[in-house]
Amino acid sequence: MLLKTHHCGALTKANVGETVVLNGWVQRRRDLGGVLFIDLRDRSGIVQIVFNPDFSGDALNVADRARNEFVLAVSGKVVERDAATINPNLATGEIEIQVTEIEIMNPAKNPPFFIEDGIEIDESLRLKYRYLDLRRPEMQRTLMIRSKAAKIFRDFLDENGFLEVETPILTKSTPEGARDYLVPSRVHPGEFFALPQSPQIFKQLLMVSGLERYYQIARCFRDEDLRADRQPEFTQVDIETSFLSQDQLLDMMEELTVKLFKETTGADIPRPFQRISYADAMGKYGSDKPDLRFGLELQDVSDIVAGSGVKVFASIVEKGGQVKALNAKGCGSWSRKEIDDLGVFASRYGAKGLAWVVLKEGEMKGPIVKFFTEQELEALKERLGAEEGDLLLFSADTKKVVADVLGNLRLKIGRDLGLIDENEFKFAWVVDFPLLSYDDEAKRYVAEHHPFTRPKEEDLQYFDTDPGQIRAQAYDLVLNGYEVGGGSMRIYKREVQEKMFGALGFSKEEAQEKFGFLLEAFEYGTPPHGGIAFGFDRLVMLITKRSNLRETIAFPKTASATDLLTDAPGTVDDKQLEQLSIRLALKQAASKA
Amino acid sequence: MLLKTHHCGALTKANVGETVVLNGWVQRRRDLGGVLFIDLRDRSGIVQIVFNPDFSGDALNVADRARNEFVLAVSGKVVERDAATINPNLATGEIEIQVTEIEIMNPAKNPPFFIEDGIEIDESLRLKYRYLDLRRPEMQRTLMIRSKAAKIFRDFLDENGFLEVETPILTKSTPEGARDYLVPSRVHPGEFFALPQSPQIFKQLLMVSGLERYYQIARCFRDEDLRADRQPEFTQVDIETSFLSQDQLLDMMEELTVKLFKETTGADIPRPFQRISYADAMGKYGSDKPDLRFGLELQDVSDIVAGSGVKVFASIVEKGGQVKALNAKGCGSWSRKEIDDLGVFASRYGAKGLAWVVLKEGEMKGPIVKFFTEQELEALKERLGAEEGDLLLFSADTKKVVADVLGNLRLKIGRDLGLIDENEFKFAWVVDFPLLSYDDEAKRYVAEHHPFTRPKEEDLQYFDTDPGQIRAQAYDLVLNGYEVGGGSMRIYKREVQEKMFGALGFSKEEAQEKFGFLLEAFEYGTPPHGGIAFGFDRLVMLITKRSNLRETIAFPKTASATDLLTDAPGTVDDKQLEQLSIRLALKQAASKA
Repeated sequence: MLLKTHHCGALTKANVGETVVLNGWVQRRRDLGGVLFIDLRDRSGIVQIVFNPDFSGDALNVADRARNEFVLAVSGKVVERDAATINPNLATGEIEIQVTEIEIMNPAKNPPFFIEDGIEIDESLRLKYRYLDLRRPEMQRTLMIRSKAAKIFRDFLDENGFLEVETPILTKSTPEGARDYLVPSRVHPGEFFALPQSPQIFKQLLMVSGLERYYQIARCFRDEDLRADRQPEFTQVDIETSFLSQDQLLDMMEELTVKLFKETTGADIPRPFQRISYADAMGKYGSDKPDLRFGLELQDVSDIVAGSGVKVFASIVEKGGQVKALNAKGCGSWSRKEIDDLGVFASRYGAKGLAWVVLKEGEMKGPIVKFFTEQELEALKERLGAEEGDLLLFSADTKKVVADVLGNLRLKIGRDLGLIDENEFKFAWVVDFPLLSYDDEAKRYVAEHHPFTRPKEEDLQYFDTDPGQIRAQAYDLVLNGYEVGGGSMRIYKREVQEKMFGALGFSKEEAQEKFGFLLEAFEYGTPPHGGIAFGFDRLVMLITKRSNLRETIAFPKTASATDLLTDAPGTVDDKQLEQLSIRLALKQAASKA
Repeated sequence: MLLKTHHCGALTKANVGETVVLNGWVQRRRDLGGVLFIDLRDRSGIVQIVFNPDFSGDALNVADRARNEFVLAVSGKVVERDAATINPNLATGEIEIQVTEIEIMNPAKNPPFFIEDGIEIDESLRLKYRYLDLRRPEMQRTLMIRSKAAKIFRDFLDENGFLEVETPILTKSTPEGARDYLVPSRVHPGEFFALPQSPQIFKQLLMVSGLERYYQIARCFRDEDLRADRQPEFTQVDIETSFLSQDQLLDMMEELTVKLFKETTGADIPRPFQRISYADAMGKYGSDKPDLRFGLELQDVSDIVAGSGVKVFASIVEKGGQVKALNAKGCGSWSRKEIDDLGVFASRYGAKGLAWVVLKEGEMKGPIVKFFTEQELEALKERLGAEEGDLLLFSADTKKVVADVLGNLRLKIGRDLGLIDENEFKFAWVVDFPLLSYDDEAKRYVAEHHPFTRPKEEDLQYFDTDPGQIRAQAYDLVLNGYEVGGGSMRIYKREVQEKMFGALGFSKEEAQEKFGFLLEAFEYGTPPHGGIAFGFDRLVMLITKRSNLRETIAFPKTASATDLLTDAPGTVDDKQLEQLSIRLALKQAASKA
């Protein structure tokens, strides 16, 4: 067997005169008057190999049988190309190989799509033939960058004293385990393991163990309602530390993030990252993961319109709702149709209507203008920095709906107006998340993050008066409108934990039942601790500028949680089920569906 | 909050005069005449902190409340100890901290066992309170070495062009999936994912993808019959390469192994590792994972005893069995009781009896001696290198039983005689495993490794004549009697694969049904490839000289596959099962059990 001495894509003029052995796949072949040119591809790139009766002898006849994607082993001499045939588009374009020996290592059927970048075929075909899809250079580059990104994370964390610890994948269903994948136990009939939604409990236990700095690039699982860009199993860089303040932790994570992006994209990202409170993010951008690459900030105009003749505005403000506006700079010339389309877009996010005003020819125009006083119009103009040619869009509803509507309109208009620099990586920390939110159905507060999130020291007082006002020591790292990481400092004091459970309406017994062994662990000397988890798939997606998570995962699942390559999930035989002491209950499922 | 400026165990005389902040746990406290001495522990080690009315002020009163495992934050000055109080057993024994400020970060209940090395308590208590068990220095050291070992693997593989690729954990049940953990799918009622027993299929597909060098420190799952030292989930360093010969791969893996042991244990392990054929390993040591730290090789004496008066020997040889012997050097003086005990031990491995001969006072003695001729005795003596004072042990049975009996006797005697250097790491490659073995029940050949294992080129001829004689390009890495790695070159040629399926008795349709998409993938230009997987838990166990795998895993499961800490597996509520379209079938299970 002829085994490679060199990589195809690594050969240069420096190798001229050397005899090399190459192994690779036929990218394409051309027969020019009895001389055969083959582009041979391996992971490193492509090189041209030449079969000529003058030096190839019988190898030419063998090579003649080769077709696209055949695996070849060739031996030959590296020579300079004639000036006229130099290919400046190819790293190896100045040389070629004069082949003297060949072995067809394996033939290949004609692949169902071309092995090249930018193919436009149905994604399901790519997923079914993922092993061919992964031969395409852009997929190989993505996997290489993914591998490199993992290494950068690990090296940085190792240098900073973090231990890599593996936590169980067969673990226990969490109290609110609605989204847990379950695994029946053969040895313990009727009992189930659960796959972890995150290593949260274990990483906190490792802090109780005094490990101080833990990390793991961890597989996590969530049996979620299907959404466009989620995966049933995903990877997070899971981190937990003891004896650090939130600021110390965020600083260290910033340093890590900057290093990661520098070494994978070359970008120099300035530090410190902007830190924006949850309240400000929602207020200005209508989102807790704002895209900060452009402005178009939302403005609260509730005070201005509260007493206006626009009845719907006035009444919404009166009922505790909100009226906010967005100045779409320079969109005053948009057609009525274009503005109506914005309304349709807004309705997807719950808008019942989309009021608007344009500044045209020195005047404010639009259906609602006549209901405002001159003074109110002036105040709006000033608040929104409105100038000739601007389009002002209004949303009036609950805080949540207004944020959703205008936040999404802001993104759409930012994109439509080309305000976004696609080459910029704009990071920010969103901090001071609310600790609790009131669940109207359950008629109680629920934890926004999780029940072990530490409240801000100065807000502890509100436990007794207004729990909804308590801010958490919780933070998200956002990048270009995506959440790429998030975490919190954890409660480590018993009395704070009791207040938290109290606010959540858990009795001592309930808390014990839900979190028993973790609460017990906390009794034995728990250090102050906190952590973060980075969404690794998402980060790789943003680093490689791919369009969805599936492009960053070697063997992803579809939006309906199937693997088109292996055809998983699949049926299993009754004997397997019997061994697991379970049985299918399909009818009930069908009648529910 | 007083947050650490230094690690407890890292302080030395070089820090004298500095004011430091330390965070850690109370290891122990002593009150000597109103002066309080506390050993403060963190991950790095222990340092003595001192509270004295002269410099501690109110901190002394606060410190007085501290008990074992309280979490303290202290600030104070590093001072040299008096010559008389220097503790040479402590890395920080030359200094101590004069504390001026203290904060009790958290109190602690009295732990159920001491936080120190070498405790002798029931393992189940340690597992239930794993978070306290992991505070013990020997557990922390093990986890640190485990983390370091992973880093060494990764760095070496990265330097050698390997890409880290994550393969799915939610995948498809394999055709012989008896040991698969299954995961019901909520989205696809009646269908199941399976957890991988190894990433075997995916790593081969990655080679089809042209990735050339892949690795992953992969979690694998096996719902096995319970055995003493197995875990339902375990970690392997999974490696696959293209375009390498077996020798090239093994050489590279040797280099990796030597580096791993050098950097974790300091041991200099000579290369190349011994390569011993499966036939030789079984012949000389009765094991395919021989402990080569000592001799005591087995000798085949079938030819000598075949015609002897020991009827049982003669008849076993005649029936195609085997008679082998082991020379227990210098054990000729063992008592009859001791020899009988060997017989009892041997019977555990299937021996129906254990014949023996001693050389005493120039004569061969023992119950069977009289049935041999003088010539036969001389031949035995020569074959076994028997000398005055030796004990010769004989096993006569099928090849398999003889190997089991004498292989285990050899290990026992080697240990009993102290022939084993516990500080030696003796590696070897066991190669040339049989490709197929004949299954008497199924009345067909089965794959010893898996159906894609490549036969040795020179043995291909036996497919048509004697498939049992074919040796595989398969190899195990053994260390001190443990298998620590194993793998094979894979079949990549269609015609060889067809011969293999033919030998296994699979029709084309069966092969298609069992391995469909993989066989299809192989049609599109598969490179010659092969790989290996290291048992990471086992390697860490041997590196750290721990007694079982559970000692190397942060949160292990017991031999009955339960997690005593989280109490997993556990019951789940009916609603969860209903969502998964399954139902318990406990009665059937009970009646089966």
